[in-house]
This record gives sequence, C-alpha cells and structure tokens, in this order.
Amino acid sequence: MRIIDEMGKKAKIASRQLATAGEQKNTALKAIADALMANKERIIEANNTDLENGRANGLSASLLDRLKLDEGRIKGVSEGVLEVAALPDPIGTVISGSTRPNGMEITKVRVPLGVIGIIFEARPNVTVDAAVLCLKSGNAVILRGGKEAINSNKCLTAIMQDAIESAGLDRNCVQLIEDTTRQSSVELMELTEYLDVLIPRGGKGLIRAVVENAKVPVIETGAGNCHVFVDESADINMAADIIYNAKTSRPSVCNAIETILVHENIAEKALPVIKARLDEKNVELHGCEKTAAILGDCVVPADESDWETEYLDYKLAVKVVSSIDEAMDHIAKYSTGHSECIVTQNYKNAKLFTSTVDSAAVYVNVSTRFTDGGMFGLGAEIGISTQKLHARGPMGLNELTSMKFVIEGDGQIR
Amino acid sequence: MRIIDEMGKKAKIASRQLATAGEQKNTALKAIADALMANKERIIEANNTDLENGRANGLSASLLDRLKLDEGRIKGVSEGVLEVAALPDPIGTVISGSTRPNGMEITKVRVPLGVIGIIFEARPNVTVDAAVLCLKSGNAVILRGGKEAINSNKCLTAIMQDAIESAGLDRNCVQLIEDTTRQSSVELMELTEYLDVLIPRGGKGLIRAVVENAKVPVIETGAGNCHVFVDESADINMAADIIYNAKTSRPSVCNAIETILVHENIAEKALPVIKARLDEKNVELHGCEKTAAILGDCVVPADESDWETEYLDYKLAVKVVSSIDEAMDHIAKYSTGHSECIVTQNYKNAKLFTSTVDSAAVYVNVSTRFTDGGMFGLGAEIGISTQKLHARGPMGLNELTSMKFVIEGDGQIR
Repeated sequence: MRIIDEMGKKAKIASRQLATAGEQKNTALKAIADALMANKERIIEANNTDLENGRANGLSASLLDRLKLDEGRIKGVSEGVLEVAALPDPIGTVISGSTRPNGMEITKVRVPLGVIGIIFEARPNVTVDAAVLCLKSGNAVILRGGKEAINSNKCLTAIMQDAIESAGLDRNCVQLIEDTTRQSSVELMELTEYLDVLIPRGGKGLIRAVVENAKVPVIETGAGNCHVFVDESADINMAADIIYNAKTSRPSVCNAIETILVHENIAEKALPVIKARLDEKNVELHGCEKTAAILGDCVVPADESDWETEYLDYKLAVKVVSSIDEAMDHIAKYSTGHSECIVTQNYKNAKLFTSTVDSAAVYVNVSTRFTDGGMFGLGAEIGISTQKLHARGPMGLNELTSMKFVIEGDGQIR
Repeated sequence: MRIIDEMGKKAKIASRQLATAGEQKNTALKAIADALMANKERIIEANNTDLENGRANGLSASLLDRLKLDEGRIKGVSEGVLEVAALPDPIGTVISGSTRPNGMEITKVRVPLGVIGIIFEARPNVTVDAAVLCLKSGNAVILRGGKEAINSNKCLTAIMQDAIESAGLDRNCVQLIEDTTRQSSVELMELTEYLDVLIPRGGKGLIRAVVENAKVPVIETGAGNCHVFVDESADINMAADIIYNAKTSRPSVCNAIETILVHENIAEKALPVIKARLDEKNVELHGCEKTAAILGDCVVPADESDWETEYLDYKLAVKVVSSIDEAMDHIAKYSTGHSECIVTQNYKNAKLFTSTVDSAAVYVNVSTRFTDGGMFGLGAEIGISTQKLHARGPMGLNELTSMKFVIEGDGQIR
C-alpha cells in the first residue's frame, strides 16, 4: 500500500471520531496554542534549517521573509488558534427543518466534509492556520506544503499531533505529507477514495495545476484581477481614496485592484486627481490612448496583456470607457470573478452594476480590500473562493462543512 | 474554433441575459409546455426513428421502454414544465445580511451558477426536465444525451429553443450537443472556460467516467447502496413493512435498499417475518451464515461482492450483526453515502445512528424510498447528490444556484 493510501485511511478513521467530537475539539485547539508557545525554540530551530537551505538555494529575500518564523510570528499563530477555538462550532447546527404531510420530520443538519486536503507553498504559518480551521469544523486534514518549509512543517505538525492526542483525539486528525516531490502532490490530487475536497492555497501556477489535474473535488481560490469603475456621477475624491486604498494598501494580495475603468464624461476631471493620489506611492499607470491623452507621457501604453494581468505590484491599468455597459463588458471579459467596485452617486447604475456583475464580491462605493473573512464577520478564513460551486468569496468555517438530512418517523412507507 | 467552444461562448452570453430575466423565465417555461403539446406528433415521429434504430441495434425491451415517448408521456413532461414554472424563483433571494461596524452593508444574494452541462443516457424526458430546471434557476444549459435518443433530443431541443425565443429570451439558453461520439462528451468534461458545473445523470459507468475525467467541477449523483439496520428493540412488523417497501416498491431506483443488517438478538424472530413479506415479490436473499442458519436453504450464500453490489433488482443481501456498532461499521465500509435507515425503539441508538452514519439521508423508522426532491418538499429534482461538496441529497432549484456578496457603502476604505 502506498504511503498516501495509508494516510488517507488513517484520516478517514480520524474524521469519523472528529465528526461528533464537540467541545473536545476546543480542548485540542487550546492544547495546540499552548504547545506552540512551549516549543517555540524547537520551531525556530527547525525553521532556521529551512532558512539556511533557502539561502543556499538562492531564494529571494521576499520568499525568505515569508518562510521565516520568529518568536513574534509564533505568538501570532498561537493567538490565531485561540481565536478559532473561540468561534461557535458550526457542526450540528440545524439549517432548516419541516414536518411533511405524512408526519415524518426532516431536519437538515450541518456536518463536516470529512477529509480535506490542503496544498500550499512556502508559508509555514498556513500549516497551523489550515489545520486548526479543519479541526474546528470537524474535518481531518492532509497537508502538503512546499519543500522550502518542510522542516518547519514537520516540526509544527508533530507539535500539533501531540497536542491533539493529549486532548484525547486521534493524532491523525492532522497529517503532513513529508515527500515534497511532484509525485506526492499528484497522488493527493487523485486520492478520490479518501479525500472529500482539495483546497490549493498559493499562486496562480499552483492553483491552475490543481484545477487541471485533480480528480477529487477542488475549491479554486485566490486569483484576483479586480476592477474599480468610476461612473460619470462619481464623487471624485471618494473614487481617488478608494482606488488609492485598493491599489496601494497591500498590492500583493488578491483583493487589490489591477485595472480602473473611468467614464469618459468624468475622465478629464477625475484622472488627474486619481493620478495625484497614486503618485504618493509611485504607482505606474498603464493606460489606453484616451488616458494618455489626458495624463500625458507618464502613461505606459496599455495592450491586451495589461487587461489580463494580475500585477500584484505598484502598477495599475487604466481604461476610459464610454458607458457603464462598456465597463461591465470589460469586467465580464477580463475579471477572475473575485471583487469589483463601482463608484457612483447614481442609484440606477449602482443597482445595475450589483445585479449584473458576476463576481464573488460586488461593491458600491467601498474598497475591494474588504473581501476577507475577518472583514466580512466570518471570524476566520481558509481562502477566497473564485468558483461558484459550494463556496464563493471568503470561506469561513461553514464553507468547510456539508450537511445531511435526518428523517425521523414511526413506520412511514411510500 | 471547435463547435463545443462556440456552444460554450453562446451559452455564456445567454447566461448573462438569463441571470436577471425574472418573470420572463416563467413566460418561456409556459411557452415550452404549450409547444410540447402543440408539437406532439412531430415529437412522436422523431421518437419513432429512435425506436426503430434501437430495435435494429438490438436494444433491450426495458431500454426501448425508457426511450419511448407517447402522447401520455409527452403530456406528463409538459405538466412537469408547468409545475417548475409555478415554483418560487430562487434567484435574487437574500440569504443573509448585516451591517459591519464601519457602516458598510453586506448582503448575500442567490445568483445562478451560470452555465451547466448535463450528460445523460437514453431517456429523452431528461432533456426537457433538466433544461427547464436550469432555465428556472437562471442557468444556461448544454445538454449531451445518449446516441439512442438523438432524434428525439434534437426535436425536443428545437421546440424548446423556439419557445424560449418566443418569450424574448436567447434561444441558446438551451443547447444540445448533436455529436454523440465519445469525443464530444470528453470535450464537454474539459470545457473549463465556459462550464460552471457538469452533472452526470445515469448509470454507475457514466458517473464514474465523468468523475474520473472531468476537469470542470462535477456534482456526482445517483449510486445508492442503501441499508436498513434492524436494531434489537425494533418493532418487527414495522421493520418488515419498511424493508418490503424500500426493496420492492421500485427496485431499480437509487433509494431502494440493497442490504439489511439485523441485530443477532432479534434475528431469529425478525428474519422469518421479513422473509414472509419479501416472498410476496419473490425477493432472492443473499445471506451470511447466521442468516442461512435461521432461514435455511432458500438463502444464497453471500460473499464480499454482495455487500458491495447495487442489485437494482428483486435481490437483497442480509447480514446478522452483533451490535449497532458493527452495523454502522458495515455501513461506513460499503455504503455509497446515499440513504440508510435504523428501525429501533431505543432512543439512544436512534440518536447514535443519526449522528454517526455519514450519508445524505439518515432515517429512523422511515423507508429510504423517501429520498426524493418531491417527497422532501423541494418541488423538483435534478438528481440526488452523493458527494458532500455544494449539494448533498436531493437537488432542487437552490442547488442549481450560487451566491454573491453585495457590499454597499459611502467611501469605506481599509
């Protein structure tokens, strides 16, 4: 039997116990939070090995920074675990119910998904974040992290497993695939017998590879080619504030914007104000011809690739459009379905935009940077779904669950 | 450009219009119901061609019967369309909402999935059933039926398209793939650019092929290896009635049972009563050794394959178990996660069974034959999901939808 099948089998067994574990899950979470703090030297030591290997292999400074765990970060991770413990338990919630004409009572109850696979890249904090969200929602998890963080991940997983066991639960609730070759991630993507869902967390390449190759159900996360449309009736200062915030407050995240669309009737007034704000952060503008005609030589001429690109950088594509319909058509064509915003004072256009634009989060006069589980009041987040099946937008604990029908009666037959 | 890409593109365009169509959808549905009746001769003629080809190709009598459309069946299909028209429109429903501390208002609104693919086999009534459920829930649909029904399907689709157009909607809301080679279904399974979900409807082989090969999200439907567990405290007559109903009222459907598990403390009394009922329909029993010891030579010795098999016939596997735990372990090992029932008068065991058994529908003292959209009060059904992601159990209109977040404010930034 392959290692992955053994892991799948163990996870399935653990998930059956976990499905009805109740308060014991919180005991385990608190034990994990404590154990992380108690073992911080051990974690830092393992992490140092990864950092040394990373330096030797020429990892970039930003990747090394993502990889790093110091005392402060471990404390943050530990506190995050306690926050998850404090959230209400989704499992066992009655979603709806009714008594049918024949007297049988139907109740729709929230249950765990079962076994969740998470494939992720170099950030070892994801190991703990993902594991505890799965645990809290009653799911066993099989983690497959990047090779750069393998020593940190092994250490963190062992600490979590011991803590879980100390709370009387099966240590196989959380397992880590230690083989970081491509083969092991392919095996995980094809583990149809044991895996209820696979969630990739990381860059475009990883997510594309999982969506293309997985045989198990996948929740696609992440890619955000987000837009702000400045309507002709927009409050120009509000538009500039929202664009500045949505582009520059954290350009590397998926809810940052990549393109603005500006109505031609307001472009001449609005674009210089917007540019002035963005100049504070030296944002490079890639604009259409009309944009260049208004703003001049500082504009890099935009081509098709600019409308398609998620820059994740201090760059912004700018297009002047002749109507809200042209703006919505552009969004329909190029958006990844993550977050889009209209800035307008026109009631009809606000309603048209929110009803027509087909993205996970559609904003009126609010920065797209709010597309986030915490900001939406979901408490915690395992990722942002850009697909339409099962979960859309920020995924909290409820999105890691399924449901079942329980039907009670006294001998009803059909 | 391949035909399938053109169809995908047209479906995407149609789906955008359909997403906000409102009452026009019902106008289209009523037009479809009328058109089916007005064109019944044309349908029967096309269907006759399929039947003749089927006979020439040696189709079995039961397959020919499934394939057949006569005046009565067309009337039934047409009335089914009107029933769907009468259901409440799921689109635009506000699922939840809140005002966040910064004053922005978040609303979670039900929206269509977009473009749905349906792959199905020889029953031409599915062409209409599936199309109208997709239309009502605001989704464009691409149908890929079996080659045996191709003439009927082409005729039905053309009639529906004309009716949809007469209601002012895009005729490409419903499209049929006319190429019935294996190639066309593979292309549909890989149509990631246009398809939001693919739903296979049919036998085990078809569903397995789709789950294994699809690159688009799939909802797995159908397979039902369902169980009844007769607990030691069961009312024996109730158990016999439920088993008789669940096995014999329609053995070919997925919510019929395939195995019964009987507690050893009640087996000697219960099995003869159960057998007497099943004898009315000459049900063949495949039993374990203990079953044979009680019921005698009439029992076919059961092996591993009996626990795994969905007979879909007047056959039933029987196993005597020593505890509810053994029964639940058996179910966990062999069930397809569709429907299971406990017959018991023991409150604790009823609760243990419903909380532990991980199937879409878990019954206490009720026949598994109720796992059905109509019986659950969902109004209509596109299939029964046996996966845990997105939809589980009978899928009605809500299960053909997604949601989006609409966020309104007055300049909030983060």
